[in-house]
Amino acid sequence: MAEDTKDTTSSNQMWGGRFASGPAAIMEEINASIDFDKKLYAQDIRGSIAHATMLAHQGIISSEDKDKIVTGLNTILSEIDAGTFMFSRKLEDIHMNIEARLADLIGTAAGRLHTARSRNDQVALDFRLWVKEELQKAESLLTGLIAAFLDRAQEHADTVMPGFTHLQTAQPVTFGHHCMAYVEMFGRDRQRVRHAIEHMDESPIGAAALAGTGYAIDRHMTAKALGFREPTRNSIDTVSDRDFALEFLSIAAISATHLSRLAEEIVIWSTPQFGFIRLSDAFSTGSSIMPQKKNPDAAELVRAKTGRINGSLIALLTIMKGLPLAYSKDMQEDKEQVFDAAESLELALAAMTGMVRDMTVRADRMKAAAGSGFSTATDLADWLVREAGLPFRDAHHVTGRAVALAEQKGCDLAELSLEDLQAIHSAITTDIYSVLTVEASVASRKSYGGTAPDEVRKQIAWWRSRN
Amino acid sequence: MAEDTKDTTSSNQMWGGRFASGPAAIMEEINASIDFDKKLYAQDIRGSIAHATMLAHQGIISSEDKDKIVTGLNTILSEIDAGTFMFSRKLEDIHMNIEARLADLIGTAAGRLHTARSRNDQVALDFRLWVKEELQKAESLLTGLIAAFLDRAQEHADTVMPGFTHLQTAQPVTFGHHCMAYVEMFGRDRQRVRHAIEHMDESPIGAAALAGTGYAIDRHMTAKALGFREPTRNSIDTVSDRDFALEFLSIAAISATHLSRLAEEIVIWSTPQFGFIRLSDAFSTGSSIMPQKKNPDAAELVRAKTGRINGSLIALLTIMKGLPLAYSKDMQEDKEQVFDAAESLELALAAMTGMVRDMTVRADRMKAAAGSGFSTATDLADWLVREAGLPFRDAHHVTGRAVALAEQKGCDLAELSLEDLQAIHSAITTDIYSVLTVEASVASRKSYGGTAPDEVRKQIAWWRSRN
Amino acid sequence: MAEDTKDTTSSNQMWGGRFASGPAAIMEEINASIDFDKKLYAQDIRGSIAHATMLAHQGIISSEDKDKIVTGLNTILSEIDAGTFMFSRKLEDIHMNIEARLADLIGTAAGRLHTARSRNDQVALDFRLWVKEELQKAESLLTGLIAAFLDRAQEHADTVMPGFTHLQTAQPVTFGHHCMAYVEMFGRDRQRVRHAIEHMDESPIGAAALAGTGYAIDRHMTAKALGFREPTRNSIDTVSDRDFALEFLSIAAISATHLSRLAEEIVIWSTPQFGFIRLSDAFSTGSSIMPQKKNPDAAELVRAKTGRINGSLIALLTIMKGLPLAYSKDMQEDKEQVFDAAESLELALAAMTGMVRDMTVRADRMKAAAGSGFSTATDLADWLVREAGLPFRDAHHVTGRAVALAEQKGCDLAELSLEDLQAIHSAITTDIYSVLTVEASVASRKSYGGTAPDEVRKQIAWWRSRN
Amino acid sequence: MAEDTKDTTSSNQMWGGRFASGPAAIMEEINASIDFDKKLYAQDIRGSIAHATMLAHQGIISSEDKDKIVTGLNTILSEIDAGTFMFSRKLEDIHMNIEARLADLIGTAAGRLHTARSRNDQVALDFRLWVKEELQKAESLLTGLIAAFLDRAQEHADTVMPGFTHLQTAQPVTFGHHCMAYVEMFGRDRQRVRHAIEHMDESPIGAAALAGTGYAIDRHMTAKALGFREPTRNSIDTVSDRDFALEFLSIAAISATHLSRLAEEIVIWSTPQFGFIRLSDAFSTGSSIMPQKKNPDAAELVRAKTGRINGSLIALLTIMKGLPLAYSKDMQEDKEQVFDAAESLELALAAMTGMVRDMTVRADRMKAAAGSGFSTATDLADWLVREAGLPFRDAHHVTGRAVALAEQKGCDLAELSLEDLQAIHSAITTDIYSVLTVEASVASRKSYGGTAPDEVRKQIAWWRSRN
Repeated sequence: MAEDTKDTTSSNQMWGGRFASGPAAIMEEINASIDFDKKLYAQDIRGSIAHATMLAHQGIISSEDKDKIVTGLNTILSEIDAGTFMFSRKLEDIHMNIEARLADLIGTAAGRLHTARSRNDQVALDFRLWVKEELQKAESLLTGLIAAFLDRAQEHADTVMPGFTHLQTAQPVTFGHHCMAYVEMFGRDRQRVRHAIEHMDESPIGAAALAGTGYAIDRHMTAKALGFREPTRNSIDTVSDRDFALEFLSIAAISATHLSRLAEEIVIWSTPQFGFIRLSDAFSTGSSIMPQKKNPDAAELVRAKTGRINGSLIALLTIMKGLPLAYSKDMQEDKEQVFDAAESLELALAAMTGMVRDMTVRADRMKAAAGSGFSTATDLADWLVREAGLPFRDAHHVTGRAVALAEQKGCDLAELSLEDLQAIHSAITTDIYSVLTVEASVASRKSYGGTAPDEVRKQIAWWRSRN
Repeated sequence: MAEDTKDTTSSNQMWGGRFASGPAAIMEEINASIDFDKKLYAQDIRGSIAHATMLAHQGIISSEDKDKIVTGLNTILSEIDAGTFMFSRKLEDIHMNIEARLADLIGTAAGRLHTARSRNDQVALDFRLWVKEELQKAESLLTGLIAAFLDRAQEHADTVMPGFTHLQTAQPVTFGHHCMAYVEMFGRDRQRVRHAIEHMDESPIGAAALAGTGYAIDRHMTAKALGFREPTRNSIDTVSDRDFALEFLSIAAISATHLSRLAEEIVIWSTPQFGFIRLSDAFSTGSSIMPQKKNPDAAELVRAKTGRINGSLIALLTIMKGLPLAYSKDMQEDKEQVFDAAESLELALAAMTGMVRDMTVRADRMKAAAGSGFSTATDLADWLVREAGLPFRDAHHVTGRAVALAEQKGCDLAELSLEDLQAIHSAITTDIYSVLTVEASVASRKSYGGTAPDEVRKQIAWWRSRN
Repeated sequence: MAEDTKDTTSSNQMWGGRFASGPAAIMEEINASIDFDKKLYAQDIRGSIAHATMLAHQGIISSEDKDKIVTGLNTILSEIDAGTFMFSRKLEDIHMNIEARLADLIGTAAGRLHTARSRNDQVALDFRLWVKEELQKAESLLTGLIAAFLDRAQEHADTVMPGFTHLQTAQPVTFGHHCMAYVEMFGRDRQRVRHAIEHMDESPIGAAALAGTGYAIDRHMTAKALGFREPTRNSIDTVSDRDFALEFLSIAAISATHLSRLAEEIVIWSTPQFGFIRLSDAFSTGSSIMPQKKNPDAAELVRAKTGRINGSLIALLTIMKGLPLAYSKDMQEDKEQVFDAAESLELALAAMTGMVRDMTVRADRMKAAAGSGFSTATDLADWLVREAGLPFRDAHHVTGRAVALAEQKGCDLAELSLEDLQAIHSAITTDIYSVLTVEASVASRKSYGGTAPDEVRKQIAWWRSRN
Repeated sequence: MAEDTKDTTSSNQMWGGRFASGPAAIMEEINASIDFDKKLYAQDIRGSIAHATMLAHQGIISSEDKDKIVTGLNTILSEIDAGTFMFSRKLEDIHMNIEARLADLIGTAAGRLHTARSRNDQVALDFRLWVKEELQKAESLLTGLIAAFLDRAQEHADTVMPGFTHLQTAQPVTFGHHCMAYVEMFGRDRQRVRHAIEHMDESPIGAAALAGTGYAIDRHMTAKALGFREPTRNSIDTVSDRDFALEFLSIAAISATHLSRLAEEIVIWSTPQFGFIRLSDAFSTGSSIMPQKKNPDAAELVRAKTGRINGSLIALLTIMKGLPLAYSKDMQEDKEQVFDAAESLELALAAMTGMVRDMTVRADRMKAAAGSGFSTATDLADWLVREAGLPFRDAHHVTGRAVALAEQKGCDLAELSLEDLQAIHSAITTDIYSVLTVEASVASRKSYGGTAPDEVRKQIAWWRSRN
């Protein structure tokens, strides 16, 4: 005999604990998706209503059957909304749960709903509708976060703080300018979100199992009814494609990276050593016996979400790697990754908007830090090049000597006397003091996109007209 | 005034939908961990009982208080086991939920439990206990999967199949030998699991917030009571360390990679084109109208779990990157990654054990495939080198001519006549036929670890004595 | 004394082997980027020429200095192109190497080039120019791959093959249709590339160290000269931003995922068991003694590149996580990831275009496989619903019986006699045979995007007009 | 005609630029590994010498041939060491390059070396030898880094600094204690490295293509000659297995995570705001005009390497996902990931050892920071519980009042008068001052693993005896 068939009667003993009932229990546990895909119920019902309506319009099902189906589906929608719907794991997924309930409610007409449709295009539709809505939510949350930054930037267009490179003071900037850097980042995220919607705005329904169908369906009609720009063009691709999920995850990962940078700054700025900001009570936690302690929990959690979203991105990229066309069951693992990342992103954007809006900016601490460490040394050198015509290298040399003198005197550059400065280089005039204070330094950087308050206000205005 | 404080009264409007109640709602949602860390309740209670017992033994709390605490905690354990415990999100996490309930049950004595302890070492303990148990479960599931392969290998020590490289037939091997390759892989996974337990077998409790404590506690006593080899040596590291979680995830990722390779083979072998195996009904799904179709859903889902576990590994590595010591709130994101990966690994190991045990091996199809494609050409060349003393290059040349002749005659190498073969090279004798069949080829590869059935049986025996 | 300073004189002994010379050697090795960033030389020189030209136009440097700088830079360009330029690791990076050489060539005028510029905006410019060109190359390679598929699709619009789900035969499709699924995927990739160019088409030069500059530069002029749409709007963001690199990597990762799916199909289709295609010699490797063996090495390597590109994406996402603004040295690690991923993507696209163009399609094997396994069972059921008015469930039942009968008779559905079929259900007429062959099945699926040859030809025409 | 063969004559035009010569050029570029696998030359030659010696010992080749082979290989080793060997890309990989040169040098005897061996087991051997050596190097570098920390810990066992949680001051600890936390981390890394060596210490040579061999080889002899514990047990697994590479990468990723945490602390501690340490010039870069500025470049680069190593880990996990046994060409992509990660890890460990050894610890700044922020509030509460018998909750309340008073008076807790304290709670005695200073606080935490200087010295001694 060329084949051997395993006897499985005794396999029950082999599974300990939760798998006690053997293969059936394991398979149910690994296979059922209802625990997570029930999140798609509203999309599933919307899709089915559009499909049934189209089928009736094309004469594929009767108008009476369509009416029954629509009424039944709306009943189910109410039941799920109300929390009275009984989900069954035996029915595996949201599609089968709704299908079975529809049969209960309206009898054989329920079966007609599945004409010219398969679970493959149905799940592609539901998931795509969900992701599209999530992209729209992300767009709106990004707009909210940008708005929060625009408000703080306006308020602090003149607030001087140290500009850091390598977390070392480099040159003075304004807090408003710093806020506007985040506006740029989240503005790019939003642009990516908008383009992602454009990339995925095609209706999968009607691709059927993978080959299309012989029924005279109208895919443009369902596409329109569901708010898509047009139907997809290739049925095999339609049921194989999860680009919209991958693109959502990669946009979310980049946006989370921006959020993590901001979160890191908030954590560092909240230390007693920096003390640039104070978080509101709503977004920090205290200690009952150390009243001065405010842990930036929300910022830390936002920072951590980056890891979580990167993980989801890698998970789905790995899952999709090397899958032959068309649908493979591996693709069922797509949803939890996107659901989790979407929730993390939403939460992180909302929490960050709250933190930005509510935090107290300690302008005195910022200014004091900006002024220390000879942060205007570059301004001195630039003045020497620009006004005294020194070659760059000589200007550097002179500046180095001025800094050394200030360090030795324990004062800042702006506190050196004109005599002291002229002793170092005779071309220096009293005009030099116009560049040695942090305010002067900041005001001087008027190049397009620079930190001069008026430049920052232009940036704000530009963005306000686009937000 | 150097500081500005934001008025937050109107912030409510800014949060749409789920965040309608503003900062408080967002913070609760991002901060609360009770939804997932309640999984740690048994570990939390075990840890608290060990701690209270030690405190009483050291005279830090009274024996009466200890008794009340232990009784109260056991009551809570029963309540949670029975599903009657009311978890509260306001109480944030499992520790606070249990703590609050304990105060309800036993009053002020409950407060004494927190002497010489902090949430930082408490959560480190609970999570470490959980991961240790999960490692032990993985060890046992790996042992079960190895046992399944040993049984199938024994049964099929003589079953010939094609050995593939590049998914092209290379040389004949036995199915038993192929099974034993997986035994090696899962055996290495198990070895890694055992060493991981050794690496993390240290008790964190007593590290307190991060600096240790001034109370005269006995950390060796709690370590012993909780089944750890010894207490950790450095309190700062103790509350900062999540190596045990990262090591669990990396072992899981490697094991999942092995499972994905097996899953891929099962998917390919189940195609009508290959037809090497037939999955049991328990681990595949059919189609109501295509009775011949058996979708290898379980194998596909196991393959997909690799992505999921890789994602969790990257998530936690990213979360831990660059965190200053000691505890940061980012670390709260550790648990969901490990919980999810552990569940995926457990499920995948159990499902694979079931598939291996239940699948039907179609030995005739395997043998037919092994014999096609001149898979014994290497054996012919080797014979010419070994028996006829030809240099390797000449032997290759002769073999190439024999293959060309067989191809032209539409037969296999073993079906060429002695005349035909001798016409190609006169040194060939009738002894050549002893190496040209797939059975002969397989039997000849007697090198240590080779595919000869007796070698495979030695491998099986070696492993049986260690499983 | 509150500070202790370590004596480092004896530290040399502590570094074995390559680090023998101690800290200096280690620092040089970890810090120097010239080994990889010399790839940016052409961009660096273009950027410097545009900057010098603008400085002269604005009267910031003299026209004579500008001319010297431009001539000097062009000389350096020729030297590097010719391979005669001596790169020095002591000079750390490409900017310093070119700067030093320029000083050699033209003396002090070289120093004027660095007016109103910093290494921070310089490297941002060079890298952005490089990535933009790489995006343009990817766009063009994707167009080439799409063209290859369009040609094969046209040729095989009528070639029937099995459509797979779960790698099991589901319904017949055409090879042309299958090719067009890949056209959709690579078309989406190209659309993402085009939008990525749009997102990053802003010139960083002029942001200076991070705060902008006090010189009266014209950033619109340099932006235009370098082919950018406009200058960036915020100088802090400009030197902090690596979104363009992250977006390139995520697009590359999604495209590589598509390539891996195609590669997997090529590997499986090239097995003797499937035998759907034969790779050209150029893209496979053989064996000197197994002439029938053709290893699909190129496809396997393309499949593997997915891992490599995913790795680069995760690397850069991890590097950027939690970096405070503005520039941090961590960002120096951005380039190698992008260089490596870009090379991998380019190579994979080119190799795949070659494989698709050169492979032999074995239409007979495809058709034979399409016809086996009762792949038209769905068509039978659909006919019963559509033509005989059966409810879906009844139609399924009838189909199941027909399949069982065919299986028992060892024939295909189309080979059952009308009597046999009518015995199962009396409503069946001779018209049924018009749907039971694979050709009929395929021809019937005329829904938009379906597999009917005419539909596929419409898809081809649509794409041809856009490629 | 069922097959169509593509004409490729005109394909040359289709490849732009670097692929101008068409398929051949692409294939060479994607297929050749010599550019990176030449790193394995020493391992390849060692392996070949061991193999040839064994073949001669078993009588499979003659003693004369063996001598020629060994002499030839030693010549090649010298040539490569001396840089005079000419590598050829046409010969694809290191094995073929050496093989071809050996044939040049010794003629036909060269061919005998390949008896009972295949490129599959040869590459597995070379790579495994390389990884084993790299693990040994990592072990030694980790020992060096631990030694550096032990020295600094000893020196600073009494140096008080703030212990942070959430980057907020929590309780005073010592810098020595903090150093020892890193000793624990790198100690665990080293333990993982040692176990990884144990897991992979098996010789692959003799597995041949995948099935073993019919030659009477002695795999135990080659295993011993090459320093392996024993030969591998299953030839299919042997050529399919890359666990040793994956395990190396995951250990490296965890260790890099530790390094990134330390790097982050160095970056933060080096800011003017913290000012806890000053890096040596060797490991930082300055600015010619801002002499006070010291950028912690080396620490930032170490932090970034985490991303790079995580990327390599994910790359190889993704590459190996779903590969059917035995060897697939995808596996050629294993080496670059490991080479790159190994170099990054080595460099990061060496740089960090240098930074730790060379950095100046500013004990005064640390102590000042430790004493601010009422960091001994917990000590006050603990004293009230321990000495005055207050319930925990009451003790917290009293402490809160004391902190509020100190805050109001602008002094620290230890500066409140006894009257003030007794006004808050009458049980307070002068003994309270013994716990309110940071030194007293630190000295009191004598629990096992706690921060008390004597405890830290015990930790140091324990580790010294094991390093």
